[in-house]
Amino acid sequence: MEISRRRLLGTVGAAGAAGLALGAAGGALVHSEVSGSGTAGSGGAPGSLGATRVDFQGDHQAGITTPLQAKGHVLAFDLAPGAGRTEAAALMRRWSDTARRLTAGETAPVADTGIALGSGPSSLTVTFGFGHSFFERTGLTARRPAALDPLPDFSADRLDARRSNGDLWVQIGSDDALVAFHALRALQKDAGEAARPRWQMNGFNRSPGATASPMTARNLMGQVDGTNNPKPTEADFDRRIFVQGTVPPEHAWMVGGSYAVVRRIRMLLDHWDQQSLAQQEQVIGRTKATGAPLTGGDETTAPALDKIGADGKPVIPSNAHARISAPAQNGGAAMLRRPFSFHDGIDADGAPDAGLLFICWQADPSRGFVPVQRKLDRGDALSEFIRHESSGLYAVPPGARAGEYVGQRLLEG
Amino acid sequence: MEISRRRLLGTVGAAGAAGLALGAAGGALVHSEVSGSGTAGSGGAPGSLGATRVDFQGDHQAGITTPLQAKGHVLAFDLAPGAGRTEAAALMRRWSDTARRLTAGETAPVADTGIALGSGPSSLTVTFGFGHSFFERTGLTARRPAALDPLPDFSADRLDARRSNGDLWVQIGSDDALVAFHALRALQKDAGEAARPRWQMNGFNRSPGATASPMTARNLMGQVDGTNNPKPTEADFDRRIFVQGTVPPEHAWMVGGSYAVVRRIRMLLDHWDQQSLAQQEQVIGRTKATGAPLTGGDETTAPALDKIGADGKPVIPSNAHARISAPAQNGGAAMLRRPFSFHDGIDADGAPDAGLLFICWQADPSRGFVPVQRKLDRGDALSEFIRHESSGLYAVPPGARAGEYVGQRLLEG
Repeated sequence: MEISRRRLLGTVGAAGAAGLALGAAGGALVHSEVSGSGTAGSGGAPGSLGATRVDFQGDHQAGITTPLQAKGHVLAFDLAPGAGRTEAAALMRRWSDTARRLTAGETAPVADTGIALGSGPSSLTVTFGFGHSFFERTGLTARRPAALDPLPDFSADRLDARRSNGDLWVQIGSDDALVAFHALRALQKDAGEAARPRWQMNGFNRSPGATASPMTARNLMGQVDGTNNPKPTEADFDRRIFVQGTVPPEHAWMVGGSYAVVRRIRMLLDHWDQQSLAQQEQVIGRTKATGAPLTGGDETTAPALDKIGADGKPVIPSNAHARISAPAQNGGAAMLRRPFSFHDGIDADGAPDAGLLFICWQADPSRGFVPVQRKLDRGDALSEFIRHESSGLYAVPPGARAGEYVGQRLLEG
Repeated sequence: MEISRRRLLGTVGAAGAAGLALGAAGGALVHSEVSGSGTAGSGGAPGSLGATRVDFQGDHQAGITTPLQAKGHVLAFDLAPGAGRTEAAALMRRWSDTARRLTAGETAPVADTGIALGSGPSSLTVTFGFGHSFFERTGLTARRPAALDPLPDFSADRLDARRSNGDLWVQIGSDDALVAFHALRALQKDAGEAARPRWQMNGFNRSPGATASPMTARNLMGQVDGTNNPKPTEADFDRRIFVQGTVPPEHAWMVGGSYAVVRRIRMLLDHWDQQSLAQQEQVIGRTKATGAPLTGGDETTAPALDKIGADGKPVIPSNAHARISAPAQNGGAAMLRRPFSFHDGIDADGAPDAGLLFICWQADPSRGFVPVQRKLDRGDALSEFIRHESSGLYAVPPGARAGEYVGQRLLEG
């Protein structure tokens, strides 16, 4: 393996040495080889996609403010019977070690499977979180924040418990599917006898370079999705997304961390696709092609929620998704949505088993996901076309420092 | 939609006009925008991946000699009860029209879902085939080639009939997952009342640019896979892969076509990963890191099958996969393997439901897949680590000419 591994490291090393910091939002640096000589022969400057790496270490974990990746895995584990705080700490140390190496383009510490040989890290990120049940299992309930209290029930929920919750949560993202799978397998192997897979889901986004310039993502309904996301350049971004230093001492381990809400939202695409374009735009409150509000402008124009049409009705209907989810309608509640689409083939009726792996980030779910979802649950025109099929809420600790593992401040603090 | 659609067409039009023919193997031209000004900011020259398009029309259908794409869907349909030759012909006309438009970066002919708006065609290909049962359903058994006779049973087969065969087969490939899904949905809609989904599978390969230069693919076992594929530059490539003009008149509709064998090959990855690197290399007969035969050289060096080691045994074991599948060991049988990897999460035991969507192409399966698989079935060391879970054999007609639909020479000939 030596020759190939050195070649791989050489590539990545060169990328790092000549690297350009493209973004430092949230402390996670993205490095990319600067290449002006690439031809489009293989659909992109050769190797530039592969050579892009995202730092594992930082104030915050990677995979929160990192640009959307083309491929993703999200999965949950339960600690094995008999495993407690000691085993959990050892596992988090193994996982952090593996993630630190793989995200730098190195091989796994133990018996690398070879699946990613020849590929660079391709923007690989690995993000770890703890579910509510993790704290009973590890005897740490005294340090469990109230923000991890179970989410309220929503009337439209059709949740599958077997695909919800879990002691430990892992999010993997990469612009290359083999790199993502390689990381998944390495982390599963690390789990060993300490933890067992509870559920796993796969997702995707657009490939880098598919659009002429970076654009807001589209989901599988064809909607521009993510326009209203808070921007790292906004003054209150950090306060909204990451836990601040004002928490009680027993929760200090979460300072710099964030809470992730993860929902498998099935889209009833056959039903949706039967609606006319005009009907779809009334449901969303935006123009499908551009994402602009129905009251005009472009994608980033604020919706004129008070505007009345010639028919005497609001131009953006009272139950339009864009109206009900607007921050102005939710006391300023804000979350950073960073989803993947999913598509698991067809169900027994031949209908697509597809939709959105909704993942949102916030410093406090009670001022992010919960109030927005409560509002949507009561009157969103989109509800008829979607179904929440699973749910999880996870405390995602801050990023690891050099020599540290994720969660160490909780498990050894 | 008009603004966005024109913008999209503009991008693709420019790519075509300034286009460079990168490969003409098998008659399917690949066009790509030539871009020297791309920065690596989004992981590739912006838009170059998206702007790459593959001609739908040609002597052969696209998706056979087209370079591997990052995302794929394969699916089969059965004609609906009561549907026959007339409905099949109308469906093939609708499908060909949709495929012709989408592969050129245009929207679908009817009620486009918008999912791919803003993305170029991203090397989209759509390939159509007919299964054995199609000919009974359409009253065309007199024109069914013997090459479509059911494959023999293999001792290691564990086939699921519900995921095998089917009247109609469709393969979709693209370097962008949303573009591929968009095409899938458009084709499903076209099926209307004429045909019903029978099965569907999703797959992936490396993203363009993940490696420093184009390399032979790796599969989910970590093996270099595809080294011995026939090359379009070889003198007998066409004769081996595409049906020649020497067939009887009743089969003339297949001249320029090819036969696809499609197998869902589950990899028992937990079992495989428990083997040491040395054990894995004995099973395959090649070095894992480089793909070179155990007898030395590099990936493209011919294996020295007669070479004896210091222990008096063949260096490449008698049951090594590379030995048993070597063309020299199979009377020169050859097929063009063009697979996708698959990964459908974990099964009820927590084991990965992952492996290879094996797709191979040949002018005659009795001189391609069948003799090689017979040999592998009897003594391949790899058999212990894989399981064939589904099987299909399809006649894939030649490419459509201008104004023609795929299969027209059969259905209206």
